[in-house]
Amino acid sequence: MTQLEPKSARMLGFRCVACDATHSYEPQPYRCSSCGGILDVIWDDERIARSFSRELLRSRRERNIWRYRELLPVESTRHLTPLRVGGTPLYTVPALRRRFDFESLWVKDDGLNPTGSYKDRASAVGVAAALDAGARVGACASTGNAASSFAGLGASMGLETILFLPGFAPAPKVTQLLVYGARVFSVDGDYDQTYDLCEQAIARYGWYNRNAAVNPFLVEGKKTAALEIAEDLDFEPPDVCIASVGDGCIVSSLHKGFHQLHSLALTTRVPRLIGVQAAAADPLVRAFESGEALRPLRAGSYADSINVGTPRNGLKALEAIRRSGGAFVRVEDDAIREAQRQLARGAGVFGEPAGVAAFAGLHAARERGLLGPRERIVVVVSGNGLKDVEGARSAVGSVTPVRAEIADLRQHLERA
Amino acid sequence: MTQLEPKSARMLGFRCVACDATHSYEPQPYRCSSCGGILDVIWDDERIARSFSRELLRSRRERNIWRYRELLPVESTRHLTPLRVGGTPLYTVPALRRRFDFESLWVKDDGLNPTGSYKDRASAVGVAAALDAGARVGACASTGNAASSFAGLGASMGLETILFLPGFAPAPKVTQLLVYGARVFSVDGDYDQTYDLCEQAIARYGWYNRNAAVNPFLVEGKKTAALEIAEDLDFEPPDVCIASVGDGCIVSSLHKGFHQLHSLALTTRVPRLIGVQAAAADPLVRAFESGEALRPLRAGSYADSINVGTPRNGLKALEAIRRSGGAFVRVEDDAIREAQRQLARGAGVFGEPAGVAAFAGLHAARERGLLGPRERIVVVVSGNGLKDVEGARSAVGSVTPVRAEIADLRQHLERA
Repeated sequence: MTQLEPKSARMLGFRCVACDATHSYEPQPYRCSSCGGILDVIWDDERIARSFSRELLRSRRERNIWRYRELLPVESTRHLTPLRVGGTPLYTVPALRRRFDFESLWVKDDGLNPTGSYKDRASAVGVAAALDAGARVGACASTGNAASSFAGLGASMGLETILFLPGFAPAPKVTQLLVYGARVFSVDGDYDQTYDLCEQAIARYGWYNRNAAVNPFLVEGKKTAALEIAEDLDFEPPDVCIASVGDGCIVSSLHKGFHQLHSLALTTRVPRLIGVQAAAADPLVRAFESGEALRPLRAGSYADSINVGTPRNGLKALEAIRRSGGAFVRVEDDAIREAQRQLARGAGVFGEPAGVAAFAGLHAARERGLLGPRERIVVVVSGNGLKDVEGARSAVGSVTPVRAEIADLRQHLERA
Repeated sequence: MTQLEPKSARMLGFRCVACDATHSYEPQPYRCSSCGGILDVIWDDERIARSFSRELLRSRRERNIWRYRELLPVESTRHLTPLRVGGTPLYTVPALRRRFDFESLWVKDDGLNPTGSYKDRASAVGVAAALDAGARVGACASTGNAASSFAGLGASMGLETILFLPGFAPAPKVTQLLVYGARVFSVDGDYDQTYDLCEQAIARYGWYNRNAAVNPFLVEGKKTAALEIAEDLDFEPPDVCIASVGDGCIVSSLHKGFHQLHSLALTTRVPRLIGVQAAAADPLVRAFESGEALRPLRAGSYADSINVGTPRNGLKALEAIRRSGGAFVRVEDDAIREAQRQLARGAGVFGEPAGVAAFAGLHAARERGLLGPRERIVVVVSGNGLKDVEGARSAVGSVTPVRAEIADLRQHLERA
């Protein structure tokens, strides 16, 4: 792989999502020096467009996020993980389309990333950026997918990872971190206390910061899903793209990706984005509907990856949805369970609860009149169902016990 | 996708693995009519070679098993699942190579298949063949990956699946089946009784038979892993290919794939195959070492997908290993646990215990002098670690509990 131009040459600087102030590239800030808000990378699309083209992409064999490396805040090609991050399939789903009467529907299965979630896109870029910056240790606070993806991608590149988890984190998710060799601190406190301890430790020990609420590079990694969707559809992006929302990074990143393709003149439109929250964890839906400021609330959904009461990228997400002309919708936990069954049975795609919430949101959006009858729609499934088999249990029935005799089996079959 | 020639035109017939008798293609037999042995497809490679070439492959965009469709026992392209089965990454693993001093080493991660295992290759072909045959229902007996892959692939194509599990099957594996909408019978008996009930039911109700001990088409689906390895290495197959062995289908299929490429003159050599069994479930190692007949034994490994005392494709596996000039090796459960950590920490690949046993076998094979110093080696990881998180728990340490105070954290960090 050829070397990349320094990222400073490809970026113009940063813009604060909260106060709109702009900041130059050097010295690299983490947060807005005026107001403390989250920053957003401003790319020099004019410069990038000179060499980044459809032809360039056609000439590339790799099917992972690095095929878009000029659009990513990474530098040394030695720091790009060899794991297949991204390049996830965009499925045509004929049976689902017929059953629910959609003309053009695709499902992007991001559960097929190396550690099983969309977050691998962010972590791969976070690990590369950490190594570019000379770091040997990175840290983050997370209850789930961000932590496991950082641990796995870090392991693939020899970056040591230190993870802070609130004490209630479920055992299977913790096991995955430990297998990858991460150092895991279980904090006697809630998520906010855990997060604060992580930030204090990062400030003190100088570890690379992989918290998406602070690090503006992570959303850049995530935007690759939009780039893939557009490329897989021959640069005709869908009319609507639907994703579930916890902290708000995924919808922000989808908008950023589609928007950048448009800015690079590789496409001619930006899809409307529909963000889906669980009804029991819907602060962004409320802020969107009321037009008032985002207010934290106590979250209570079973879909743990989106069970977020204080979204850390809420402003970015609200802005992305509004600018795209889209909307937020809420779905009940039971609708998420139903969506999990529908996707698994109608398409063979087993997503985790937060991952399939987007499919539940598809129904909700249609009921609310948010979808035109012939629109082309992409639903993003953000995590693998194997990540939370226990959560899936409440969505299904049970086995039929039989004796090891054909007569007994026959009775069961004939009864059914 | 263009239509395929009927498979009867591409196949010459079947050969019995036990007695070497040959059988014509029609009427399609399940087992040898002379001795009841398992059959093996005989392909008309001369005919296939006329149109199947490297150029043809280069022209194909799909990165899944269907890019090799002329070599598969499938017919109607309407019966090919849209799920991305196969096309799994072959990773260069620089850190592992350095750490363990291997010159050329790759890891193929088949845990990234849609339902998380190598078995998806077999099930995708099983589902297509069932639909080609006009079946609406398919059945199999399995404790794990074969069942979940059949349920998932069946769901993707609208084939109803009926699965027979012994009563002891672990809850998470059962949940996956139910999510996919399979009908699951939990049989009050051991695996052999479960298997027998399944075969009786198939005979009675005419369901399509997905049991790999009977259906000769499944191994053909599995051979695609060898085709991918060869193609990813620019048709220079490795010297050695290592895989774990339970029933024996995977090593048989790897040999078949490499052998067919050679027969089609697309490659110039067939790798030596090394089959790895858990020491507590090693009937094939014993038969290989003693040269005597395969004898069933009581299996006791924690690596459940290869915890097989009565391998149903044992003869095929022994023949494949012998014909390739390879060997069988055994590894202790603790070595499997160690291999799970090594792969996750050194490459970011989290495999299930049976999946990583092949990597433990790499060490064992070197100790036994079975590997040349500069040989090119591919290790196949056959299943995703998320399938058995509970099993991984015994391979790792634990989290460090801390109070939500930087002072407490500092003490822990300084102690370490």
